[in-house]
Amino acid sequence: MRSATLSILFFSCFLLSPFSTLTAQKSDEHPLPFISVDGNRFVDENGYEFRFRGVSSSDPGKLKEQGKWTLEYFEAIKSYNANVVRFPVHPSAWRERGQENYLKLLDQGIEWAGKLGMYVIIDWHSIGNLRTEVYQSEMYNTTKTESFRFWRTIAARYKENPVVAFYETFNEPTTYHGQLGTLTWAEMKKLHEEMIGIIYAHDKTVIPLVSGLNWSYDLSPVVENPIKYPGVAYVTHPYPQKREQPWEEKWQDDWGFVAETYPVVATELGFMSEDGPGAHVPVIGDETYGNAIIDFFEERGISWVAWVFDPQWSPQMFKNWEYEPTMQGKFFKEKMGELNK
Amino acid sequence: MRSATLSILFFSCFLLSPFSTLTAQKSDEHPLPFISVDGNRFVDENGYEFRFRGVSSSDPGKLKEQGKWTLEYFEAIKSYNANVVRFPVHPSAWRERGQENYLKLLDQGIEWAGKLGMYVIIDWHSIGNLRTEVYQSEMYNTTKTESFRFWRTIAARYKENPVVAFYETFNEPTTYHGQLGTLTWAEMKKLHEEMIGIIYAHDKTVIPLVSGLNWSYDLSPVVENPIKYPGVAYVTHPYPQKREQPWEEKWQDDWGFVAETYPVVATELGFMSEDGPGAHVPVIGDETYGNAIIDFFEERGISWVAWVFDPQWSPQMFKNWEYEPTMQGKFFKEKMGELNK
Amino acid sequence: MRSATLSILFFSCFLLSPFSTLTAQKSDEHPLPFISVDGNRFVDENGYEFRFRGVSSSDPGKLKEQGKWTLEYFEAIKSYNANVVRFPVHPSAWRERGQENYLKLLDQGIEWAGKLGMYVIIDWHSIGNLRTEVYQSEMYNTTKTESFRFWRTIAARYKENPVVAFYETFNEPTTYHGQLGTLTWAEMKKLHEEMIGIIYAHDKTVIPLVSGLNWSYDLSPVVENPIKYPGVAYVTHPYPQKREQPWEEKWQDDWGFVAETYPVVATELGFMSEDGPGAHVPVIGDETYGNAIIDFFEERGISWVAWVFDPQWSPQMFKNWEYEPTMQGKFFKEKMGELNK
Ligand SMILES: [Mg+2]
Ligand SMILES: [Mg+2]
Ligand SMILES: [Mg+2]
Ligand SMILES: [Mg+2]
Ligand SMILES: [Mg+2]
Repeated sequence: MRSATLSILFFSCFLLSPFSTLTAQKSDEHPLPFISVDGNRFVDENGYEFRFRGVSSSDPGKLKEQGKWTLEYFEAIKSYNANVVRFPVHPSAWRERGQENYLKLLDQGIEWAGKLGMYVIIDWHSIGNLRTEVYQSEMYNTTKTESFRFWRTIAARYKENPVVAFYETFNEPTTYHGQLGTLTWAEMKKLHEEMIGIIYAHDKTVIPLVSGLNWSYDLSPVVENPIKYPGVAYVTHPYPQKREQPWEEKWQDDWGFVAETYPVVATELGFMSEDGPGAHVPVIGDETYGNAIIDFFEERGISWVAWVFDPQWSPQMFKNWEYEPTMQGKFFKEKMGELNK
Repeated sequence: MRSATLSILFFSCFLLSPFSTLTAQKSDEHPLPFISVDGNRFVDENGYEFRFRGVSSSDPGKLKEQGKWTLEYFEAIKSYNANVVRFPVHPSAWRERGQENYLKLLDQGIEWAGKLGMYVIIDWHSIGNLRTEVYQSEMYNTTKTESFRFWRTIAARYKENPVVAFYETFNEPTTYHGQLGTLTWAEMKKLHEEMIGIIYAHDKTVIPLVSGLNWSYDLSPVVENPIKYPGVAYVTHPYPQKREQPWEEKWQDDWGFVAETYPVVATELGFMSEDGPGAHVPVIGDETYGNAIIDFFEERGISWVAWVFDPQWSPQMFKNWEYEPTMQGKFFKEKMGELNK
Repeated sequence: MRSATLSILFFSCFLLSPFSTLTAQKSDEHPLPFISVDGNRFVDENGYEFRFRGVSSSDPGKLKEQGKWTLEYFEAIKSYNANVVRFPVHPSAWRERGQENYLKLLDQGIEWAGKLGMYVIIDWHSIGNLRTEVYQSEMYNTTKTESFRFWRTIAARYKENPVVAFYETFNEPTTYHGQLGTLTWAEMKKLHEEMIGIIYAHDKTVIPLVSGLNWSYDLSPVVENPIKYPGVAYVTHPYPQKREQPWEEKWQDDWGFVAETYPVVATELGFMSEDGPGAHVPVIGDETYGNAIIDFFEERGISWVAWVFDPQWSPQMFKNWEYEPTMQGKFFKEKMGELNK
């Protein structure tokens, strides 16, 4: 039965016992109440509605590399009035840094966020086709098994930690117009459910976030074929150029209707001018888009997270390491200031 | 058609021709008769019933590392009155030592066992979910493809060798209460059948051993959905704490009933006191359990293999490298002495 | 949205941007017209029938290693009167050389072939069971995902290049009499279709070549269950010993009948004497076979490619690096001289 005892002597690669990564690492104090799903809303432990409005960090490993995965960085996010921070864990970064080292970064980030009163979304930041395991570019390469093992490790480690409110199982499912092979919603749904099953076997207090096809834009099949588990929320990434103006009716049909039944979180949105650094389709836009989408969210109780709190990845929230806001940085800072009270 | 010729010059990693591992390595003499399945019994070449009662070694690579994979070790097993030895090949050990080197260990062990009149079970010693490829801990990590390739290599090498009586396709299937994803018997059965098909394509004289869910404890679905191939036997690992006392009726319903139709081998069992080194659920027990389970086996013609002939892995059969027996060591040595005549 | 910008600084393994390999590398001039499928024939841009008769190179990486991947090698192929050259890309060679370096070899070969007026077939040269991912020997090891990614890379790079007329998705599907696990035509067809879908998402001007079971010999299931995509051609490898004489009726039933409905290319054939270097089943034969098969092809409009333009891999087309023809070398050189006008 038990062969673990000697494995420490014998299997040199097991010097770090696998179980060490599976231990929940709770902070001594949890400064935030648990959030859960109640119908199409998020509620706190007293049943009061809670809406998330915040930002995505860039990859924690990338920030660490630059000496920027610091309390100061989280204080800057707080100064932008966020109540949630999303950590996009790139599969390539997870492998390169090594699981043990990467987990330490997450531990730190979760602690800083919690102390500053902000919730955390852990996001498995791949883009592509998880069924065929062909991805948009090499940095997003992963496998079904690596994804399952990732969620097992994460769910065991941050079990019943209220700061870690969400697990976003797969950032952006897409076939890239067939270049990554075929993928139906029924197939992606089954993969989401595999991951959610593993998560829930460890922790029933966390909220899985479920993305649709078309780079996490399209939720239209959810109406007929929702995730089989309770307690989840759905995701959209409604960048300005996903649809032509006027947007509202299209947004409603593509994903807005889901908010009538389930909680919805736009875990990415953002805009920038065409001549900005790293500008690319579908993110080119301005405050016209910004106001339209925020109004659309607020009318429907949709939570949202702006992409991205970094001066290099685009669309940028700030221009330099003095955290001087860009166009969208100013816009979202002001909106969060008004709405996150 | 043939590109192998130059591959030796060209592909440096092919200096060891893949075909070299696929050659059957029979001993000059086979001191033991072939065993096969006849109804729910094992029979020898003359049709006489044969029952297996023996022990599991620890991982051959682990023993080699310690200088203990020796004829003396096999003589000690013989002195405990075993007629079969099970070799638990851990996937991580298989990869780390390298296939060619690991096969040499198996060659040696098979030769020593055969010379001492003991049969061999080769066991692919993984624990977890072979469908999702998520495992109990890192040492058990493998893939479907690695498992298929393992059985191809093993089945070709030990083809029609009567000493190598059994191939145990997958040690302990489990979902770990859902933490490793979902796995139904129908799914595991299909994976067993893939491995058995590969084995039988090489060797029709060997007996595949088939494990059920719940860490190889539960055979209840076999009644309605047995393996599609003839000539197999079923496995159970009925450690003391898998069920509360009184055990017999539960054992009968969980796996004992299978022995009415198919041969059954308990390829692991064992017990130790709560304060022994490495004691853990579900192995804590004493001779009350020992006598109950051996009686249960003998009444039904079930073969059995005690875990584990090692002084460190638990529950231990012996205390030190003088092979001084532990509590269960004394018990099983005596039982094998009585029953293996 | 965009994390690629900094990835060049941050992810050291991404110094070669993944997108660099996805750019079509057209020659400035395409000396050859596009070929497409029209019913059961290949036609050029003016609708005239075109038949392919040529040779397979050995692995481009193997030839490069030997200093033989040169314009002179392609001129020798031309001197044998070929109008098409097949490049068998061995998965192990693809990995060992590295994708970027291997693609440079393909770029060169395509350019040389095109300048000499010969078309190119790119062949993913694995042998075995793509479903179970167990292969005939190590050099053919690959995975479904590696295969999908290979075709994505290749299809993007040689997009709309008329010289690269064919993509042969998987060289030789086989279960090796069950030793590699089971594989039905329905399963292999689905895998071919996954690869063809990825190819067509990039390039609608190329012709996918589809192989059957039994080492790419058997096309009999195609009559009831053809590939779902238009524009494809089917493949056979009818070596002399695949069937006993008289061959014609068996060839007709096994694969010849397909040529009544779809274009067929025998992407491998060849013969050699029993005492030649590297002789092996099923390639032993002589000009009796050669004449029979070429007559069979020509009566049905079947294109063909002799294996293999190499003095070491067997059956050899030439004896030494003076390109002195072997028995089959003389035979095919003469046939191509007559027929390729
Ligand atoms: Mg939590
Ligand atoms: Mg071949
Ligand atoms: Mg045998
Ligand atoms: Mg994005
Ligand atoms: Mg082309």
